[in-house]
Amino acid sequence: MEPDTSNKRWPKTQMKTDILKNRIEKVRKLLRTQKADTLIVTAGSNVSYLSGFGGDDSWLILTGKQIVLVTDSRYTLQAKKECPACKIYQRKGSMIDAVSGLLKEFRAVKTVAVEDKIELTVFKILRKKLAVRVKPVKNLVESVRAVKDESEIAAIKKAIEISEKSLAKVLPKIHIGISETEVAAMLEFEMKKAGANLAFETSVAFGSNSAMPHHRPTMRKLKKIDTILIDYGAKFNGYCCDITRCFAVGKVNNFYAKVYKTVLDSQTNAINVLKSGIEAKKADASAKEIITASKLPPYGHGLGHDIGLDVHEQPRVSFLSKASLQNGNVITVEPAVYLAGKFGIRIEDDVLITESGCEILTSLLKSDEVPLLKV
Amino acid sequence: MEPDTSNKRWPKTQMKTDILKNRIEKVRKLLRTQKADTLIVTAGSNVSYLSGFGGDDSWLILTGKQIVLVTDSRYTLQAKKECPACKIYQRKGSMIDAVSGLLKEFRAVKTVAVEDKIELTVFKILRKKLAVRVKPVKNLVESVRAVKDESEIAAIKKAIEISEKSLAKVLPKIHIGISETEVAAMLEFEMKKAGANLAFETSVAFGSNSAMPHHRPTMRKLKKIDTILIDYGAKFNGYCCDITRCFAVGKVNNFYAKVYKTVLDSQTNAINVLKSGIEAKKADASAKEIITASKLPPYGHGLGHDIGLDVHEQPRVSFLSKASLQNGNVITVEPAVYLAGKFGIRIEDDVLITESGCEILTSLLKSDEVPLLKV
Repeated sequence: MEPDTSNKRWPKTQMKTDILKNRIEKVRKLLRTQKADTLIVTAGSNVSYLSGFGGDDSWLILTGKQIVLVTDSRYTLQAKKECPACKIYQRKGSMIDAVSGLLKEFRAVKTVAVEDKIELTVFKILRKKLAVRVKPVKNLVESVRAVKDESEIAAIKKAIEISEKSLAKVLPKIHIGISETEVAAMLEFEMKKAGANLAFETSVAFGSNSAMPHHRPTMRKLKKIDTILIDYGAKFNGYCCDITRCFAVGKVNNFYAKVYKTVLDSQTNAINVLKSGIEAKKADASAKEIITASKLPPYGHGLGHDIGLDVHEQPRVSFLSKASLQNGNVITVEPAVYLAGKFGIRIEDDVLITESGCEILTSLLKSDEVPLLKV
Repeated sequence: MEPDTSNKRWPKTQMKTDILKNRIEKVRKLLRTQKADTLIVTAGSNVSYLSGFGGDDSWLILTGKQIVLVTDSRYTLQAKKECPACKIYQRKGSMIDAVSGLLKEFRAVKTVAVEDKIELTVFKILRKKLAVRVKPVKNLVESVRAVKDESEIAAIKKAIEISEKSLAKVLPKIHIGISETEVAAMLEFEMKKAGANLAFETSVAFGSNSAMPHHRPTMRKLKKIDTILIDYGAKFNGYCCDITRCFAVGKVNNFYAKVYKTVLDSQTNAINVLKSGIEAKKADASAKEIITASKLPPYGHGLGHDIGLDVHEQPRVSFLSKASLQNGNVITVEPAVYLAGKFGIRIEDDVLITESGCEILTSLLKSDEVPLLKV
């Protein structure tokens, strides 16, 4: 067992309070531009971002002066421990009744902004119950979250460290006859044992299964000559990472090596253009250019996405994206080639966008050659 | 490793097709009562229920004659394998553009029902794009899902079997000094190794941590005399179970034993009233009656909830619930007592509602005595 690192993101309560207050002020500033005096935060990771709360089923009410976490008896003790910058309100009836009751007490409330990712049905009931103007708003907290602060980058780095150490422990245990499921289970066990959660369910794909970009592990057994794709990531103190690595087993087929090199070059070409201010779709185009030039079919998904409290955050890095990258975004760069019935190769790293370029946060097993597993 | 059971829920493709078609017809019937000719299914577990699809980010379009899964290139291969009863459409642009394009091709469409759990913002864009009447509908697919068919009950039973065998393997490995995190990691490893996923993140709470109903495992070490609460469940072929067990370590404290007996009696009292037709809130009241009579504080959450593709489904079994139980519901029964600073005890079993009463599907370690772990 490794030492307890679960509070590393928040070295001191005062520091945690300051970080949270800073985030809250940024959201208050945006709220004023929306001509609303109050925001109801309903998305779990937005609630967590502004309050420090790690539980579920709770909302935040944010006014110019107050911030209240509305939770229930399952979470009251936890919320009191985790949320130094807000008041805790334990509801007994429904969430909407509790929130509308509290808003009546805050007499100055005139226009309530509600996150537009709220469920349609919940929005309708809420609008009916509240005696004031209700206005859906888009990506208010998310736009603040897109730029990571130091404490967040530290948590992502720690998630990466745990992920990379865990894979390093598992690779020597892979043997002929092992199943995809067992490799995934071992990897998740190592990450959990190190005090992390999972950013998402681990994907382990042998041979032609890797041609499915989101393959779920099966009982398919590893052969003497085979290939492996592993897409996984730990979540540390709420923060996700997301890494994909591909391996050859037994020996490296020439065609596999050619595709591997193309995907790696494609990734390098994209990483080379990354910096604050660049359009996200340009990075996607830089990656695809190399794959198309090699007469291989480029991936159909995006080049990548921001990571943070959620494994998929704004901005998305795809040909559909209208965003430009900012200093402090942490994005995945994951070009791929999928050949149905044969294999898929995806290489994915996590990258911090900076003013002058970017910093690659992941470091595991990058070389020009296909990594060959001795089994 | 146990044998590959990943296709046990669907013994033959024809049987799978028949089951799916039966579900689709039930939803079509309900759709007609809503005076709509088309349903857009957006909730992931509803999509999975009607199509057999196990991936994400896909919607279904259901008309009187057609059923189309709208997915993207990451999932096309998987969808073709998993969805024998519907057509697969691979979108290239946004989901809303793809769906509105397809609906224009289906010329007979006049009124489109949309699940009211859709995000507000997505609903607004969809309504703008579609040239026809759009009508939010509540719990249409969910109401069909509440009553489990044989294939679903079999999957839940298998999830329970894997969960119980996994806990039985882990209990002998628990020792003084082990952390909550490591117990959780071992349990999840066993479930994964047996070919299951997790219904939710395992909660392991030692001592006073168990007073938090949704405690997340920490590095807290097990003492020579201690208590343990474990809330966990496997997900097998998409179907969840949900089990909680409590243990004493070293020796059984008298007060702990008294509270344990009260919670167990409370659970028995609730189970005794369960049958098709009973109001859900009556079962909750039956459980609370025993706890209150013992002058202990009853749990603040509900007595339980339906389980299935989601770990929390309709109906909820709480004092707020307006539902009556039906033959074929599979619900959790999980009364509890939480004593802040001391400990919490929750005992949770999964129960199938029948015409004449109920069938308790979980069987692990139930006795009148507090289970004592030798460590």
